[in-house]
Amino acid sequence: MYLGITMKRSMYAGSVRKEHIGQTLTLKGWVGRRRDLGGLIFIDLRDREGIMQLVINPEKVDASMMETAEKLRSEFVIEVTGVVVAREEANDKVATGSVELQVEDLAILNTAKTTPFEIKDGIEANDETRLRYRYLDLRRPEMLENFKLRAKVTHSIRNYLDELDFIDVETPMLAKSTPEGARDYLVPSRVSQGHFYALPQSPQITKQLLMNAGFDRYYQIVKCFRDEDLRGDRQPEFTQVDLETSFLSDQDIQDITEGMIARVMKDTKGIEVTLPFPRMAYDDAMNNYGSDKPDTRFDMLLQDITETVKGIDFKVFSQAPVVKAIVVKGGADSYSRKDIDKMTEVAKQFGAKGLAWIKYVDSAITGPVAKFLTSIEEQLTERLQLVNGDLVLFVADSLEVANNTLGALRTRIAKELDMIDTSQFNFLWVVDWPMFEWSEEEGRYMSAHHPFTLPQEDTAHELEGDLSKVRAVAYDIVLNGYELGGGSLRINHKDMQESMFKALGFSEEDANEQFGFLLEAMDYGFPPHGGLAIGLDRFVMLLAGKDNIREVIAFPKNNKASDPMTQAPSLVSKKQLDELAITTSENLD
Amino acid sequence: MYLGITMKRSMYAGSVRKEHIGQTLTLKGWVGRRRDLGGLIFIDLRDREGIMQLVINPEKVDASMMETAEKLRSEFVIEVTGVVVAREEANDKVATGSVELQVEDLAILNTAKTTPFEIKDGIEANDETRLRYRYLDLRRPEMLENFKLRAKVTHSIRNYLDELDFIDVETPMLAKSTPEGARDYLVPSRVSQGHFYALPQSPQITKQLLMNAGFDRYYQIVKCFRDEDLRGDRQPEFTQVDLETSFLSDQDIQDITEGMIARVMKDTKGIEVTLPFPRMAYDDAMNNYGSDKPDTRFDMLLQDITETVKGIDFKVFSQAPVVKAIVVKGGADSYSRKDIDKMTEVAKQFGAKGLAWIKYVDSAITGPVAKFLTSIEEQLTERLQLVNGDLVLFVADSLEVANNTLGALRTRIAKELDMIDTSQFNFLWVVDWPMFEWSEEEGRYMSAHHPFTLPQEDTAHELEGDLSKVRAVAYDIVLNGYELGGGSLRINHKDMQESMFKALGFSEEDANEQFGFLLEAMDYGFPPHGGLAIGLDRFVMLLAGKDNIREVIAFPKNNKASDPMTQAPSLVSKKQLDELAITTSENLD
Repeated sequence: MYLGITMKRSMYAGSVRKEHIGQTLTLKGWVGRRRDLGGLIFIDLRDREGIMQLVINPEKVDASMMETAEKLRSEFVIEVTGVVVAREEANDKVATGSVELQVEDLAILNTAKTTPFEIKDGIEANDETRLRYRYLDLRRPEMLENFKLRAKVTHSIRNYLDELDFIDVETPMLAKSTPEGARDYLVPSRVSQGHFYALPQSPQITKQLLMNAGFDRYYQIVKCFRDEDLRGDRQPEFTQVDLETSFLSDQDIQDITEGMIARVMKDTKGIEVTLPFPRMAYDDAMNNYGSDKPDTRFDMLLQDITETVKGIDFKVFSQAPVVKAIVVKGGADSYSRKDIDKMTEVAKQFGAKGLAWIKYVDSAITGPVAKFLTSIEEQLTERLQLVNGDLVLFVADSLEVANNTLGALRTRIAKELDMIDTSQFNFLWVVDWPMFEWSEEEGRYMSAHHPFTLPQEDTAHELEGDLSKVRAVAYDIVLNGYELGGGSLRINHKDMQESMFKALGFSEEDANEQFGFLLEAMDYGFPPHGGLAIGLDRFVMLLAGKDNIREVIAFPKNNKASDPMTQAPSLVSKKQLDELAITTSENLD
Repeated sequence: MYLGITMKRSMYAGSVRKEHIGQTLTLKGWVGRRRDLGGLIFIDLRDREGIMQLVINPEKVDASMMETAEKLRSEFVIEVTGVVVAREEANDKVATGSVELQVEDLAILNTAKTTPFEIKDGIEANDETRLRYRYLDLRRPEMLENFKLRAKVTHSIRNYLDELDFIDVETPMLAKSTPEGARDYLVPSRVSQGHFYALPQSPQITKQLLMNAGFDRYYQIVKCFRDEDLRGDRQPEFTQVDLETSFLSDQDIQDITEGMIARVMKDTKGIEVTLPFPRMAYDDAMNNYGSDKPDTRFDMLLQDITETVKGIDFKVFSQAPVVKAIVVKGGADSYSRKDIDKMTEVAKQFGAKGLAWIKYVDSAITGPVAKFLTSIEEQLTERLQLVNGDLVLFVADSLEVANNTLGALRTRIAKELDMIDTSQFNFLWVVDWPMFEWSEEEGRYMSAHHPFTLPQEDTAHELEGDLSKVRAVAYDIVLNGYELGGGSLRINHKDMQESMFKALGFSEEDANEQFGFLLEAMDYGFPPHGGLAIGLDRFVMLLAGKDNIREVIAFPKNNKASDPMTQAPSLVSKKQLDELAITTSENLD
């Protein structure tokens, strides 16, 4: 009775079914709803598998038991023993709805204050409160289901990769800081004062070294860290399914990945996905969808009408590098001028100078720019296949701005007009990536993926020429408009790796200081290799039908990268800082 | 040809067998030994599954291919195609020894410089060199086998726990610093300057909160961190198999753990262990083995002869709080006076003032203290069951010093005299732990396990009385003299948790600042719960028959907690430190 526990639990309350009728069971869990009716007390007992109705009948238990029953409040932890009986009226809404437990014995294992929000699905508590009392938030059945799903996903992935002889290897968390890439989280060293470890942004180089060690097929489901500003689908720490192989082609690695995804979809959702996934070139993705992670669950493709508008007397169009359009089918009625003004603001955020539009109503184009287009109305109508009720949005700008702007509007509109079949899981590969992206901020070319990516053979010579022309043997996997992951073949020859660092503006000294150990490793028979990483949080989020990865992370941080429950990060003692030979201008302790 | 790869690998070189004779295979891997014999070139091709002999015969390949073959050196990466043929003389020492590959096609995929040490088992390279070129060290077959074993162990554990409905949940790496316990690794926050995360020493509180959330059965194979001085079996980051359950007894949790261990032993070593494991009370372990993690593969138990020597005219013995002895069977010949002097030095490290000894030879006791013991020679001989050739070591001191000293000597002697059957895996539980240990350093009682451990019911009242009398519902699992892991039932009531913090010397304010979120969580129906953690590195080390966990960690740190390969920890840029509002007296950048 010390812990209050007297009996072993027979089974989960949520798993009791008709076939248990007549059995005496001991159940344990939390008090959900309580109703007092005609002298009887009805309790919804909740555990991780569901809820089960208890009936406490003063005619069947003694007075002291009834007294205990009277004390029961929401979220009390109890232990009950009783007989399973059929309910007079079954409740089809719960899995245990055809039975109830006639309580014979009852003990309170712990009490509970009134919770800051009700423990049920679809609550409206604000995010800070949910995080502050995360253990209560996680009691809600839909949250718990997310974590069961997550565990199923990783179990399925591990089984698949184990069957394919991948070796699960752990790589260090206390790693070396490599400033190329995102911002590192640093960890001061006590033994080597003034020196710092970095938490890994990914085990990229480490897994490459495992290939050099001859492991041949490596995987790991591993925490990674980026100290960046947070958005809905970003967290300071995140988990990736990380794999690397030797001697395989990009196609081989994609095949393995597809098999893995197919296994997960089957094991967790019962869905048979069609293999192989479609491949889309990066340029096509950008030109047709205005995104390097196109959502193909709906059309509304970007159309290039630069040729069509060439020569018209409307300089905004005729003198723009490109003019592109999306046709919102039946959108004329859905969007007022005011709505479109709002979209124009969005367009401007993407660098567009403005957003032109027409509506096609009663077989004629209307709207502010319609008058400039009358000369080509027929060509335009035909080119864009307009039918009555369509709305057309135009961006006349650089190709990049036109693509990015219309890509963003395409997604926004599809959501607003409910054009997306959310039951679909559209996987695809985006391939043929540029090796470099121009960074206005840094004033130089940066790696689109990372500096270890293998250039495509016929463009590799441009490492010492026009960097914009170098293409990578890289591939991203996309699901429903989200980048699920990506990978590449890697450089395994020292001379090419050195050319790559040079192209990125590294001095020889810098390259050696940061990556000398990798370059040196290439002296000793580094095999051809490549791999991929999948963002696990995002994948599970999409499988769970959620739109924020916080829903699938047990104890996430808020958007200030702190935990409202534990108050981490927190001040620490002067002794702790002294041992690290660190001072901070902000710590007053 | 860009990557040098022309063909898909047919299979691993190390997996080729008799049944493949006649097949044309493409193999890829590293050049091991090369021998030139009668115009033919013989190559040991190595991949992750083993080695396979290649024969390159100038009569069967063209001149350019022969030219390529002439270039082959150790650790070159190659691709070969050829026909599997039977060897004239089979080599029984390798699994592929009955066959060889008659090479028809050959390509060099990468070259290699001479490696700093030879890639073979049993090398003598020093530890720093092995770590500096870890990717080469890991190429040695015995190292790779350790990691295959490790992956098998985790796979086996996961399958077992998944079958028992444990949910694999990831807990945060960026956690709150809780100075009670070992030293934390800190991570400065950029968003909340002057504040720090801590890398978790274990997910102890987090997993308890998952129980509060109703997850019921949780597990995780998770990295933990302790910034302590390093020894052979310690690393700054280590991995534990962490589990927690609700509503179960300590016995239930031990049963689950035993099942897990049995599964691992079967899956990885083919060994059926006998269940249940023996239970030994902490006091018995200390008194009989002089250790809280007794190695039961050999006897040589500690014997208390305090009563036997009471009243003799040898004050060192007769006035000591206790006199204990171990009998080294047949040890008289094995240990010279000089050897025993060395042992005396060891004894002094454990706080003993000295080490008395006798030898029993020709039915008489000899040695420096023999003359003081003549009066009780018969009783002593009988009490210790001495036979000719035995060596007896005595420590007369406090019980603690006597136990610790003789316990250490017992293990040392067993190793020196080769008394241990290393094929045995002796698992056992040590139970009935004291809740607190007196710390001379801190001048107070500290938790023997941690402050969340449940006191045994009949001793709980001593939380407010004599702390030395409080016993814990705690259990350690021991394998061959190593602590493999440990666990306990936990406190789930706020008042008891508050008493515990008070007993440990926390002010109410300190308790709330550090653990307020846990105390608050206890307001909301915290269920009875308990769990355990197993040190994975150590477990795999013992299964692999190694004596240092570095052998089973892919990229470990050296004993200065640094990585000779990447040079982590390293200096970082002023910009990085400025963003964190940190300065360090040692960083000159």
